[in-house]
Amino acid sequence: MALIVQKYGGTSVGSVERILAVAEKVKSWHDRGNQVVVVVSAMSGETNRLIELAREINPDPSPREMDVLLSTGEQVTIALLAMALHRLGVDARSYTGGQVHIRTDSAHSKARIMEIDGTRVRADLEAGRVVVVAGFQGVDENGAITTLGRGGSDTTAVAMAAALKADECQIYTDVDGVYTTDPRVEPKARRLARITFEEMLEMASSGSKVLQIRSVEFAGKYNVPLRVLSSFEEGEGTLITLDEDDDVEQAKISGIAFSRDEAKLTIRGVPDHPGVAYQILGPIGEANIEVDMIVQNIGKDDTTDFTFTVHRNDLPRAEEILRNIAGKLGAREVETDGEIAKIALVGVGMRSHAGIASAMFKALAEKNINIQMISTSEIKISVIVEEIYLELAVRTLHEAFGLDKDR
Amino acid sequence: MALIVQKYGGTSVGSVERILAVAEKVKSWHDRGNQVVVVVSAMSGETNRLIELAREINPDPSPREMDVLLSTGEQVTIALLAMALHRLGVDARSYTGGQVHIRTDSAHSKARIMEIDGTRVRADLEAGRVVVVAGFQGVDENGAITTLGRGGSDTTAVAMAAALKADECQIYTDVDGVYTTDPRVEPKARRLARITFEEMLEMASSGSKVLQIRSVEFAGKYNVPLRVLSSFEEGEGTLITLDEDDDVEQAKISGIAFSRDEAKLTIRGVPDHPGVAYQILGPIGEANIEVDMIVQNIGKDDTTDFTFTVHRNDLPRAEEILRNIAGKLGAREVETDGEIAKIALVGVGMRSHAGIASAMFKALAEKNINIQMISTSEIKISVIVEEIYLELAVRTLHEAFGLDKDR
Repeated sequence: MALIVQKYGGTSVGSVERILAVAEKVKSWHDRGNQVVVVVSAMSGETNRLIELAREINPDPSPREMDVLLSTGEQVTIALLAMALHRLGVDARSYTGGQVHIRTDSAHSKARIMEIDGTRVRADLEAGRVVVVAGFQGVDENGAITTLGRGGSDTTAVAMAAALKADECQIYTDVDGVYTTDPRVEPKARRLARITFEEMLEMASSGSKVLQIRSVEFAGKYNVPLRVLSSFEEGEGTLITLDEDDDVEQAKISGIAFSRDEAKLTIRGVPDHPGVAYQILGPIGEANIEVDMIVQNIGKDDTTDFTFTVHRNDLPRAEEILRNIAGKLGAREVETDGEIAKIALVGVGMRSHAGIASAMFKALAEKNINIQMISTSEIKISVIVEEIYLELAVRTLHEAFGLDKDR
Repeated sequence: MALIVQKYGGTSVGSVERILAVAEKVKSWHDRGNQVVVVVSAMSGETNRLIELAREINPDPSPREMDVLLSTGEQVTIALLAMALHRLGVDARSYTGGQVHIRTDSAHSKARIMEIDGTRVRADLEAGRVVVVAGFQGVDENGAITTLGRGGSDTTAVAMAAALKADECQIYTDVDGVYTTDPRVEPKARRLARITFEEMLEMASSGSKVLQIRSVEFAGKYNVPLRVLSSFEEGEGTLITLDEDDDVEQAKISGIAFSRDEAKLTIRGVPDHPGVAYQILGPIGEANIEVDMIVQNIGKDDTTDFTFTVHRNDLPRAEEILRNIAGKLGAREVETDGEIAKIALVGVGMRSHAGIASAMFKALAEKNINIQMISTSEIKISVIVEEIYLELAVRTLHEAFGLDKDR
C-alpha cells in the first residue's frame, strides 16, 4: 500500500465527462489499496472567464480580490470530483487550500507555501477516504485567500506529497512524459523513463514546459519522487528522482531544451574600467528585467563589448534603458537582435564525461551553424544561435548524442 | 454616523453593470459618513448553473459537497463588488462566511447560524473600509463549509447586523417595500412605511414572499431594525421594527397575505375517542409533512370529522397516509381538495380592537364567498376559501379595512 498524491490539470478536468474519467482513474488506484490524495486545478476556461469578468469590473483589480475570485475555480472542481467519486461508491472529501491549512506568505497572486498541516488529510486517509484538495491556493497568516500563480497546482501537489511523506507525486497532464526534446521539432524524440530533479530543472528553465520550475525545486528539496504522466493514455510516464550514482552506464545527455523567447543586446566600445558591468546591468535589474546569458569581450583601444540576453518581451524596454546607459558611458553603439534561439544540452552525465562541449560545437559546426554565445553550468551547456537554425540544431544534436536510440 | 448592514440579492448583482450600480449605491452611503457592511448573494443564474453541473456529475450529490460547490457563487460576487468599490475609490475588503467566522451547525444545505465573531469586520470598519461579506454561507465547528439554504443571505445580513449591533439592516430587493397586499391582485395596494416584526412574520408565513421568515425571526429576536427597499429605485422602503405602543392611532390591520399553496384533507366519521387527533396527525408528521390549519367537528353517532391543510405538493403523500389511517380507525371516508386558497388578515391592532373577525366574515359573506376553515392567532385571522374566489376576497377585504387609504 502506497500513499500517492495525484494532480490533474485544467484540461484533465475540463468537462463533466473528463471529471468522471478522472474519478475512474482515482478509483482504480484506490481500489488497489493505495491511499490517494487528489489535487485539482480549475476546469479549463474557468480561470479565464473569471479574469474577464474582473477586468470588466475593474481594469486594474486588486491582487487580494483577484485571489478571492480565482480560488473559486478550483473549489468548484473539488466539489464536482468528490461527487463523481461518490457516484462510483468511493468515499471522498474535498478541501479548499485554507481548509487543509496550506499556509502561504501574503504575496497575492504569486504566494509561496510556508507550511502544510496534514493532520486532517491523514485522518481521512486512515478512514479509507480519498481526499480531494484545491490546487493553486492557500491562506496567509491572517486567513486571507492567496493563490500561487498559474501552474501553482503542481506546487500544491508536491508540497502536499512532501507534508504527507507520500511515496510518489503523480502529475497528470496532456503529454505522456518528459521527452529528450520537443517531438514537434524532432519526431525521433523519445520519452525518458527517468530523469533527475537537477536535469528536469535545467530542462524547464531552458524552455521545456512540462512542469513548473517551482514544483520541481520543491520536489527535489524534499526528495518527493515525481512522475509525469498522461491523463488520457495509459503509460508509465517519466519518473523524476534524485541522481542515483549506482545506475550502470549513466547516459551522458538526457535531453535538449530550447527556447525562442530570447533576445540579445550588445553595447560596443564601452570605455573599460572596474564596475562597468554593474553600471550596465544595474539599471536593467532595477527595471525588473531578468538577464539570462552574459558575455563580455575585451575590444580594441581599451574598450569592451558587452552582450546579454533577456526575454523577448522585455527587449524594447531593455533597449531604451541600454541606449540611455550608452550615452552616459560614452559607448560607441548599441545593437539588438530579436531573432535568436537558445539551445541547451542537459545531462548529469556531463559531470563525469569530458568533451561534451567540444562534441556539441563540432556537430553544430559541421552543419555551418554559427554559435553566438555560450554559457555552461555543471550539467548544462547552452548556446545562442540564429533563430532560423533552431530546428536543424536540435535535430543535429539529438542525433549526435544518440538520444534517438533506446538505452 | 450610523453602522448599516446592506444586503443585495442575486438579481441586484446579476451582471457587471448591476454590480457597478450597487457599488455606486454603497459608496453614496459610505460617503455620507456611515460605516457600511454589504452582504451579497450569488449573481442570478449562477446557483442554478452550479446545481445543473452537479446533477450531471451525480444525480444525488452529497449535501456537504453541494455546499462546497454553491458557496463559490457568493465568493465570486464579493470579489467583484470589492473590485467595483475600489474602482470608485472606496477602500473595501471581501470576506467569505468562514473568514468572518459565521459559525453554523453542521446541517449542510440548511445550516443555522450559531455565532458570529465581528472582530475583524469591526477593525475594517474602524479603518474606514467597506466590508463585503458572502451571504448564505458559514462554517461548522470543524471548518466545513455550510450553506443556510436558499434566501439565506437575508439571514446572514440580519445576523451580521445583530453581531455588530448595527443601526439598521437594509434588504435591497426587486420590490420597493412591503405592501398591504400583492399589487398584482389588488392594484390599490399601498406600500407600508412601517410594520412590526410580528406582523411581518405572519405576513411571510401566510404567503408574502418579500422576506425569508427566518431572517425576520432573527431580526425580531435581536431587535435589529430591518428595512426592505428597492435596488433599482430610490425610496424609503418599509421599516420593520418592534411594536411601538405609543404610536398614535395604530392601524387595526396592516396587510392581507394569501397563498395558493394549500390543499385540504378531511377524514369523516372517525369513531371518537381520546387520542384520535394524534392517531391521525402523528403519521403525517412522521412523514415530514407540515400541517397548517386543523379543524375538528363532532359529527353524528359519536363520530368526529377531522380536517387539516398541507402544502399542495404534499397532498398525494398525505392522502395515501390518511387513507391508510382511515382503514385502521374504521373511518367512513376521506376527501381531499387541492383547489383552495388561504387568506390572512394581519395586524397588531387586532389585539386591542374587538370585532375584526366578524367584520371580516361579514365582508366575505356580502360577496357570497363561503369560508371553509378559520384559524386565528393573536394578530392574524386566516380563512380558507375556494381558490376561484381568492382575488375577489383579497380585494373585498382590502377595501373593507381601508387599506387603500393613506394613514
